[in-house]
Amino acid sequence: MPDDAFRVDDSFHVFDTTLRDGAQREGINLTVADKLTIARHLDDFGVGFIEGGWPGANPRDTEFFARAQAEITFKNAQLVAFGATRRPGAKAADDPQVNALLASGAPVITLVAKSHDRHVELALRTTLDENVEMVRDTVSYLRSQDRRVFVDCEHFFDGYRANPEYAKAVVRAAADAGADVVVLCDTNGGMLPAQVQAVVATVAADTGARLGIHAQDDTGCAVANTLAAVDAGATHVQCTANGYGERVGNANLFPVVAALELKYGKRVLPDGALREMTRVSHAIAEVVNLTPATHQPYVGVSAFAHKAGLHASAIKVDPDLYQHIDPELVGNRIRMLVSDMAGRASIELKGKELGVDLGDDRELIGRVVERVKERELQGYTYEAADASFELLLREELRGPEGHNSPRRYFRTESWRAITEDRPDGSHANEATVKVWAKGERIVATAEGNGPVNALDRALRVGLERIYPQLAKLELVDYKVRILEGKHGTSSTTRVLISTTDGDGEWSTVGVADNVIAASWQALEDAVTYGLLRAGVEPAP
Amino acid sequence: MPDDAFRVDDSFHVFDTTLRDGAQREGINLTVADKLTIARHLDDFGVGFIEGGWPGANPRDTEFFARAQAEITFKNAQLVAFGATRRPGAKAADDPQVNALLASGAPVITLVAKSHDRHVELALRTTLDENVEMVRDTVSYLRSQDRRVFVDCEHFFDGYRANPEYAKAVVRAAADAGADVVVLCDTNGGMLPAQVQAVVATVAADTGARLGIHAQDDTGCAVANTLAAVDAGATHVQCTANGYGERVGNANLFPVVAALELKYGKRVLPDGALREMTRVSHAIAEVVNLTPATHQPYVGVSAFAHKAGLHASAIKVDPDLYQHIDPELVGNRIRMLVSDMAGRASIELKGKELGVDLGDDRELIGRVVERVKERELQGYTYEAADASFELLLREELRGPEGHNSPRRYFRTESWRAITEDRPDGSHANEATVKVWAKGERIVATAEGNGPVNALDRALRVGLERIYPQLAKLELVDYKVRILEGKHGTSSTTRVLISTTDGDGEWSTVGVADNVIAASWQALEDAVTYGLLRAGVEPAP
Repeated sequence: MPDDAFRVDDSFHVFDTTLRDGAQREGINLTVADKLTIARHLDDFGVGFIEGGWPGANPRDTEFFARAQAEITFKNAQLVAFGATRRPGAKAADDPQVNALLASGAPVITLVAKSHDRHVELALRTTLDENVEMVRDTVSYLRSQDRRVFVDCEHFFDGYRANPEYAKAVVRAAADAGADVVVLCDTNGGMLPAQVQAVVATVAADTGARLGIHAQDDTGCAVANTLAAVDAGATHVQCTANGYGERVGNANLFPVVAALELKYGKRVLPDGALREMTRVSHAIAEVVNLTPATHQPYVGVSAFAHKAGLHASAIKVDPDLYQHIDPELVGNRIRMLVSDMAGRASIELKGKELGVDLGDDRELIGRVVERVKERELQGYTYEAADASFELLLREELRGPEGHNSPRRYFRTESWRAITEDRPDGSHANEATVKVWAKGERIVATAEGNGPVNALDRALRVGLERIYPQLAKLELVDYKVRILEGKHGTSSTTRVLISTTDGDGEWSTVGVADNVIAASWQALEDAVTYGLLRAGVEPAP
Repeated sequence: MPDDAFRVDDSFHVFDTTLRDGAQREGINLTVADKLTIARHLDDFGVGFIEGGWPGANPRDTEFFARAQAEITFKNAQLVAFGATRRPGAKAADDPQVNALLASGAPVITLVAKSHDRHVELALRTTLDENVEMVRDTVSYLRSQDRRVFVDCEHFFDGYRANPEYAKAVVRAAADAGADVVVLCDTNGGMLPAQVQAVVATVAADTGARLGIHAQDDTGCAVANTLAAVDAGATHVQCTANGYGERVGNANLFPVVAALELKYGKRVLPDGALREMTRVSHAIAEVVNLTPATHQPYVGVSAFAHKAGLHASAIKVDPDLYQHIDPELVGNRIRMLVSDMAGRASIELKGKELGVDLGDDRELIGRVVERVKERELQGYTYEAADASFELLLREELRGPEGHNSPRRYFRTESWRAITEDRPDGSHANEATVKVWAKGERIVATAEGNGPVNALDRALRVGLERIYPQLAKLELVDYKVRILEGKHGTSSTTRVLISTTDGDGEWSTVGVADNVIAASWQALEDAVTYGLLRAGVEPAP
């Protein structure tokens, strides 16, 4: 690293709590291996702190802290253990929960503390004074054991509204006892930016403590609330990757750091980190087994996608007129959507993006527009199936009758898939395909662990002798969508398939009255596109 | 309506542009019938203005305006046509595009105008003065034809940064020519709330025009930006249902009106509207054929869902401690999630919600927690399959061995599904099921338009003679999820099925190594739960 390179220092904290608060999201269920993988991604991305969970509260989190320290060499982040202040009426030094935090070995500990008077009385069932003493005692004890301590004031903003003096007393107790940062939490997520800004400014002035912000997204303002707190002097932001979290979610790490770096001009991540943001966002979504949110700011696949014909023609003139940042700054890219709302300019740009030169052939482009409209009416979507769109484009390039006499690698005669549940509870899936390739009739049968898997295997087993390139192909994602919501399995079915050959990935679409037939169409396109990519000449 | 009831008046505009700007969202493709349905929902909900599209620009929008005025009796909303200022160097009165707006019959017209100097020069290819003249001329002409006119200043905030005097000159020209509202648009969506607030306040002071706000969500701050503009004096907010819109989307109508009504205490919708918000949001999602966003503020199915064991125990004490508003205010409800993170308190509350009394039987609750953990490890999810969870709960209620000897309505011996693609391109789907019910062995075969549909029919055809209640059941939604992202069709498959009996809807889950077997499990649960709901006694 050159001497004049930017270095993240302690003056501003990007604190990630995906592994603790983010894991509360409905639908997320992390194994220890998942948590280790996510911690690696977050550390690579360059956050300063990774809150890993609550050691002692469940065996999974205890195991995570042991393995994270043994297996990961952190480049940027410090590992943080989350826990609670000691129990009422005891000593922190004698509290097993507090000692489990020390036993985790984490150099930093975030303590959750109550700062809302009603919560102290009703949920904690102790006195207001004892709660302050619990904060003071626990922070002091952990400091005496050489841990850095942050204190999360739970329900701070609601508490401040109910009893501002008490809420501030908790902040003061934490700071006086040695907490480095006191984090004001909008735990119920009901705040708006102007309120957050006013409260943070007042608390900073009245207590002198270093403040952080933890915002939940229940009003849809978590990112703005986080920035409002920074405007008011907070120097520590708690976020989660992709905004995962309980209920609506937490402040999303990615738009928060992007706003700080690109809009505020404030450096909060290591050099080059921002350009990895889209990849990191999608990788973490994959680990938690959620589809990456297509419309997520900055990193969503739609974040720089343009569909309106109006915009598409202007974008040809100057892309910066129609985007707030260069998508490459966050590792994303501009995309032209093919849709029946799009005009010729969109199709032309899309052709360029795919490396297919449509030239100035207005008649050809018009034909493609018409065909896309017609197919989208039937339920196809080319927005998510670039490979199927490219096949359509190439057919049209061969002339007006291209789609009636496509040059093909193979032709399907018929197929059949059988799934059977036997009395002993086992399943059998068998598929037979009959196809023609290079003048030869091929009949192939294969088994699989499902009917689509059996069809995929039968097709490739049958064709591999003629096209050995197919051996590398692997189906990596499979999505089914029922197109009319109110008819269940009697509706039109759309299948999207992603396939890889080890080098790249492509998506194809099939639409039919049933899931197996739609899958077959998408498989046919997937195999055809795979052969095209491999540079194989179509059979005559 | 009583005399003292609240009435929405012209002092504040809730302006919806779902049908115009919202339709730009990737994946949305609206028919005229879809647009009419959405317009009815929006009018029922109580927005003041519904922007229906660009009449003249495409035949679908022209037809929409004709039919909307003929077929809908609007209770709350006025219909708005969207169009552009006249072409350079011509008269507005002679411009076919402008006259098409009048021909639509809409009483209100929104004109999009350029206010960013570079856009005028590069995209519009005219002079700055001529652009101002185009605004003045077009507004005057439409006003002379008795239309109310709003002017959308496209790219206003970027334009203001580049050339504030010119941006303000466009605002003045629009207001002077008779536009009722001049809407400042963050078209590229790059703004943050503090910037929006400062610019809106300055423009309001400098021009005296009535201002509106149109915010795109590219920084994740569209809702906050809209509220910041209101804080600075804007009295007209342009939003879309569920935040649909180009790229990341537009300011989401629902959190904006909820914040105004519930946080600002400002009445902007008719009495009772807010309580319909969750229903309206989901209904519109259904029309545009997108799954309702589960984590959407206020209206998402997860917006008031609690999963953490910690919270669940406190919620038993006082729900208001853990939610920012009463979910009933927006037509939503509190939900306890069943997940292996949940403790006993969650299971107990969930039992209550389902009307199953678990009493204080700690051993029983512990058994349920264990079983949920074990099943979720296999890939089941009970968060989205209440009916399957209730069946599990009822099995456990019958004692420790309940799930080994469940009281069933029927028992499956075996089944088989065949899908065949014939050389003529037609498909055949046939399923045979062998089940036992009330001591009888039933063998039934049915055809369907897909293998799952054929299985569903065969099962119900076979059982209907014994359980005539099954005739009413209909499968209304079917979702497939591949659980391990990197193995395609070779992975574990989870199927969620929603079934209705006309009165209510319930969801069931199945997990297996293939989609047909997983579907069968979910079908078995769906039929079992349907019979339970109907009050049928299980066969011994």
